[in-house]
Amino acid sequence: MPSIDINCDMGESFGPWVMGQDLEILPHVTSANIACGFHASDPDTMLKTVRAAIANGVALGAHPGLPDRQGFGRRAMDMSPAEVYALVIYQVGALQGFARSQGASLHHVKTHGALYNMTVRQPALAEAVAQAVFDFDPTLQLFVANRNMAQAARDKGLAVCSEVFADRSYQDDGTLTPRSQPGAMIEDVEQAIAQVRRMALEGVVRSVNGVDVPVTADTLCLHGDQPGAVVFARRIREALLADGIAIART
Amino acid sequence: MPSIDINCDMGESFGPWVMGQDLEILPHVTSANIACGFHASDPDTMLKTVRAAIANGVALGAHPGLPDRQGFGRRAMDMSPAEVYALVIYQVGALQGFARSQGASLHHVKTHGALYNMTVRQPALAEAVAQAVFDFDPTLQLFVANRNMAQAARDKGLAVCSEVFADRSYQDDGTLTPRSQPGAMIEDVEQAIAQVRRMALEGVVRSVNGVDVPVTADTLCLHGDQPGAVVFARRIREALLADGIAIART
Amino acid sequence: MPSIDINCDMGESFGPWVMGQDLEILPHVTSANIACGFHASDPDTMLKTVRAAIANGVALGAHPGLPDRQGFGRRAMDMSPAEVYALVIYQVGALQGFARSQGASLHHVKTHGALYNMTVRQPALAEAVAQAVFDFDPTLQLFVANRNMAQAARDKGLAVCSEVFADRSYQDDGTLTPRSQPGAMIEDVEQAIAQVRRMALEGVVRSVNGVDVPVTADTLCLHGDQPGAVVFARRIREALLADGIAIART
Amino acid sequence: MPSIDINCDMGESFGPWVMGQDLEILPHVTSANIACGFHASDPDTMLKTVRAAIANGVALGAHPGLPDRQGFGRRAMDMSPAEVYALVIYQVGALQGFARSQGASLHHVKTHGALYNMTVRQPALAEAVAQAVFDFDPTLQLFVANRNMAQAARDKGLAVCSEVFADRSYQDDGTLTPRSQPGAMIEDVEQAIAQVRRMALEGVVRSVNGVDVPVTADTLCLHGDQPGAVVFARRIREALLADGIAIART
Repeated sequence: MPSIDINCDMGESFGPWVMGQDLEILPHVTSANIACGFHASDPDTMLKTVRAAIANGVALGAHPGLPDRQGFGRRAMDMSPAEVYALVIYQVGALQGFARSQGASLHHVKTHGALYNMTVRQPALAEAVAQAVFDFDPTLQLFVANRNMAQAARDKGLAVCSEVFADRSYQDDGTLTPRSQPGAMIEDVEQAIAQVRRMALEGVVRSVNGVDVPVTADTLCLHGDQPGAVVFARRIREALLADGIAIART
Repeated sequence: MPSIDINCDMGESFGPWVMGQDLEILPHVTSANIACGFHASDPDTMLKTVRAAIANGVALGAHPGLPDRQGFGRRAMDMSPAEVYALVIYQVGALQGFARSQGASLHHVKTHGALYNMTVRQPALAEAVAQAVFDFDPTLQLFVANRNMAQAARDKGLAVCSEVFADRSYQDDGTLTPRSQPGAMIEDVEQAIAQVRRMALEGVVRSVNGVDVPVTADTLCLHGDQPGAVVFARRIREALLADGIAIART
Repeated sequence: MPSIDINCDMGESFGPWVMGQDLEILPHVTSANIACGFHASDPDTMLKTVRAAIANGVALGAHPGLPDRQGFGRRAMDMSPAEVYALVIYQVGALQGFARSQGASLHHVKTHGALYNMTVRQPALAEAVAQAVFDFDPTLQLFVANRNMAQAARDKGLAVCSEVFADRSYQDDGTLTPRSQPGAMIEDVEQAIAQVRRMALEGVVRSVNGVDVPVTADTLCLHGDQPGAVVFARRIREALLADGIAIART
Repeated sequence: MPSIDINCDMGESFGPWVMGQDLEILPHVTSANIACGFHASDPDTMLKTVRAAIANGVALGAHPGLPDRQGFGRRAMDMSPAEVYALVIYQVGALQGFARSQGASLHHVKTHGALYNMTVRQPALAEAVAQAVFDFDPTLQLFVANRNMAQAARDKGLAVCSEVFADRSYQDDGTLTPRSQPGAMIEDVEQAIAQVRRMALEGVVRSVNGVDVPVTADTLCLHGDQPGAVVFARRIREALLADGIAIART
């Protein structure tokens, strides 16, 4: 029986400021990528999010980002591999603290925003991320959607969980269409569902040029901070289940 | 054979700013209380400090503090027990991340500055600290020098390590003379050594009023950020060893 | 013709996190208290808020707070008068930078949250705030609702603008009923309007015990971050205008 | 009579962490570039530094940097011109608050570290800096050593103060030898003095290839956080005065 994980970024509130609808999204996903206090979140939010994920049976993942809260970790920074190594361990360790204190443990790591994008362009940073996760706990999975990061993870012996997107179109080489180009976003829910169905059942995605491109669809990334996110999550889950595709953590 | 631990706060540098002489102090102590990125330190400093402590065979302790870097965690803040619980887990978890990634593990927790002082006056905060440490890892020791905190730790079943000071005078009730009063600080090294010797060998301290007061001297706290700190650490260690007192972690 | 100012806290968003409905509230108020980057806001938000306030003809006020973004400046901190003096000047200066760069200037200062509450209990901090505002610009008004702060401001020769509340009940001594007590909040709009009408026209408020207590109603504080805030602002403005009370900055 | 200004970065301490020897350097310089709380400094440090500069008759300059305290503003960040515009105004405004509250006013602005370097490569950011300074106060001077920034400043009508270095060697095109290359640093004091003497008297510098390159030496930048900085400052000042070169603000 084909199976896919559904992951979503969570715990992105900060102090008095709310972001996302974590409690409404949680019933529809199987993996939570929880912000770790650098680009978003704070100790209170992390604790609350970990407890809610556990209560929903959702796998706990650390979602480390750059130390730039105002920029939400979306502004690339010049960082050395040693700095990236240390900030990943710090954040993953902090989240593991909450998991462990609540009787659970971490399942995966997914880097956030510019930290993720920096690993696309700089192999040494991808290697630093993989080394940090490996040194912290070699049984953690790494959620990735770029080749540098996947290669670095495999080189360390980490389990790689390949991520696909429902609401983004793909190019002939299997990469996402940049947001700056027309047709980058898929806004029609049925079209998004159809894309995920083929990814899960056939292992391909139809590119913007009409070419069927092979993809590995271990986990589907949903975006929880957009209007309609809850409805979208529920519908895509129902559609996949109706097609005989199991929704389960990797 | 009588024995005492010697602990010192470490890893209190931040970014480009250096504090303390960690590498010089490490050979003379047996426990390091390592700042966790809130009142001081940062991921790079924590990693470097953990590695240096391991290389010196020094026990790793987390030294969590208030989220007030400018004030070095020395300005009391109105915080709820839930907030204290979460910030202790966050910081202890982050430091455990570095310990684990370097093949080691944590030995103890000691709260810093105003966070420590707040537990003296507010039993609910002492209980929150003890609960956080217990939930994170019930085998960790808690370094304490006040009754609220010691009681809260024992109530949870945590091992308590009682702390004494070489450079502070004591009152008849066993508490430290407030810094605002004359005679609070012991600046003469020989006098400091004599005080520690009696603490370790006889379990008493002579108060400012000349009364012998019982103390439990599990660990001796040294201050590493003062001029002469390295010399003081070396001399007190040598004097204790010469008296047949072992210097060893608890 | 009787007249009252209406003020509202603004610019409390931070990075990607939105708080309040500033653009919807602005047409209904005459003074904006703009967060200055410590408890809330950031340079981009401050610039945007200053521009919007100018476009609506609303007076620009600095709203300095404690350096505790996660706690939104609502957690009291042990601070010295010298520290309070410096953090007020820093924040007021930063906001004045935006005012000046957009061809405007500041009109008033109102301290936020715990910084405000600390001046109620500690006269030396009230004096530090007044001195900071005076040294920065002795023509700025200080918005205040407590006697320490008002006295300290008058002692320096600053103009004091006395603040009243529509949605809070009063006690016999003219202070607000603490939120922890029943009847502290006035949720009925008509009742709130009636309270403000008497404040503006007669200079009195009916206390929770039914006593008419004198109040100085220079400016009415509205809360912009609550559901219904925009409707409430519009209705109270219309009701006051209908009663022949001018809505104008002080 | 030829004349040159001597500037130095100051106020780079933060909370309990000390950097530089500001009080010792101040008697030897004529312009202070004071950190504004983003990459370094805090309100208390800024106030203290402004007072010390005023007491020494030294011109007050704002030294804004990136919002990255751990990295000391030395790690480039992806920022838009709008973000740079806002962060410059915020920081210059905050420092102007201290100047004004102490009866003084700002004299110049010099951007720090990576913010400065980003303007070298991105003309839109240079323009944003110039626009921010112009909008804040068109009479402020901008201290610059790169062509983008100088051009952008002149395009706005700002006075440009061209900066030269005593301890760095130059290339044939008038730019500094990158630190990664041998011979980038001039460590011999006499050689440094000789270089500055020619800059001030003849308007040329001898490049690493032996070519005399024209330079505009309005202000000489000294580094205050290095060992020997105070002695170097005193000697270079004395040498210039002995050569009949006035040391004066621009």
